[in-house]
Amino acid sequence: MSTAKRDTYTPDTLLSVAVRVFNERGYDGTSMEHLSQAAGISKSSIYHHVRGKEELLRRGISRALDGLFGVLDEEGACEGRAVDRLEHVTRRTVEVLMAELPYVTLLLRVRGNTDTEIWAMDRRREFDQRVAELVKRAAADGDLRADVDARLATRLLFGMINSIAEWYRPERASSNGKGPSATSAEVSEAVVRTAFAGLRTTTT
Amino acid sequence: MSTAKRDTYTPDTLLSVAVRVFNERGYDGTSMEHLSQAAGISKSSIYHHVRGKEELLRRGISRALDGLFGVLDEEGACEGRAVDRLEHVTRRTVEVLMAELPYVTLLLRVRGNTDTEIWAMDRRREFDQRVAELVKRAAADGDLRADVDARLATRLLFGMINSIAEWYRPERASSNGKGPSATSAEVSEAVVRTAFAGLRTTTT
Repeated sequence: MSTAKRDTYTPDTLLSVAVRVFNERGYDGTSMEHLSQAAGISKSSIYHHVRGKEELLRRGISRALDGLFGVLDEEGACEGRAVDRLEHVTRRTVEVLMAELPYVTLLLRVRGNTDTEIWAMDRRREFDQRVAELVKRAAADGDLRADVDARLATRLLFGMINSIAEWYRPERASSNGKGPSATSAEVSEAVVRTAFAGLRTTTT
Repeated sequence: MSTAKRDTYTPDTLLSVAVRVFNERGYDGTSMEHLSQAAGISKSSIYHHVRGKEELLRRGISRALDGLFGVLDEEGACEGRAVDRLEHVTRRTVEVLMAELPYVTLLLRVRGNTDTEIWAMDRRREFDQRVAELVKRAAADGDLRADVDARLATRLLFGMINSIAEWYRPERASSNGKGPSATSAEVSEAVVRTAFAGLRTTTT
């Protein structure tokens, strides 16, 4: 097309456009035509970079998973008491979610039947499972309260963490506008304090 | 149609079918034809009950909102220290979410531009705002930790509560199958304990 931009995309910049469109329209609702319009390059230029939209989905989700699974290999996640490792993983998961927001949002929204979507859901479940094991170990050490089931505690913890993707907008955090300006460190600290120490100063 | 069921729907039973379809397909993705197929009655029979799908959306969301705002009028939400009222509202919001799961799920997923969707988002924001005021009052009383911002605390609390809609399936709770069998009382108690007292038994 004569109106198309010259294709100056790298794999990473094209991926970032595609992930934005997937999050806006849903993966199923996104066609190669939508991607072409959003990127301002022709469909054949996109096919020069990738085989199709499923490859873009897989690469977007891989980026989220690499960040999340990377947390589990950090020293703080591998050494020390289980409860401290769990706190480290909680804090760092929040930080990765906020740093890689569009990619983690894409991962959290995947619900589908293509091979890539099934793989993404399996990997997400695997991550949750690894954290659930830490919760169980910390409970067995007597460091987590015994009157909240470990499985339920894991779900509530992820509920709190994943919900950040619903409201956190990095462009507002860095501006001096009227919006909320919570930084990644403030949010991750708030999650750790709330989940592990609780909001109350006094107990009944 | 000769294959159509005789229309034995009441407004409530038709609503329950419509809300299930909205949650499966998304409101935008649902046509009157889909509703007709799911209910097994003709479109004209549906029009006998309601003016169209937006009326069904409004009624489904009203049911969720009636439950949620009802909590704010309960004695436990109106009397006593703000922190205890906040705990009551948290516990009861979880219970209403679980009892009215499809309707609250519909409310939580609304993102749109029709009058009904804008109204639903406004009312949801109003509910969140009422709870945020309780959080602020409890913080001012010195009953909530000062090192977590009240606005952030409200968001994390709702993150934990609303995430229950993602995994709770009542049919599994009542069966003796392999699935999780957490009851409404167990889940609401777990949320209150986690959010207000924290998961840790020991503090660092």
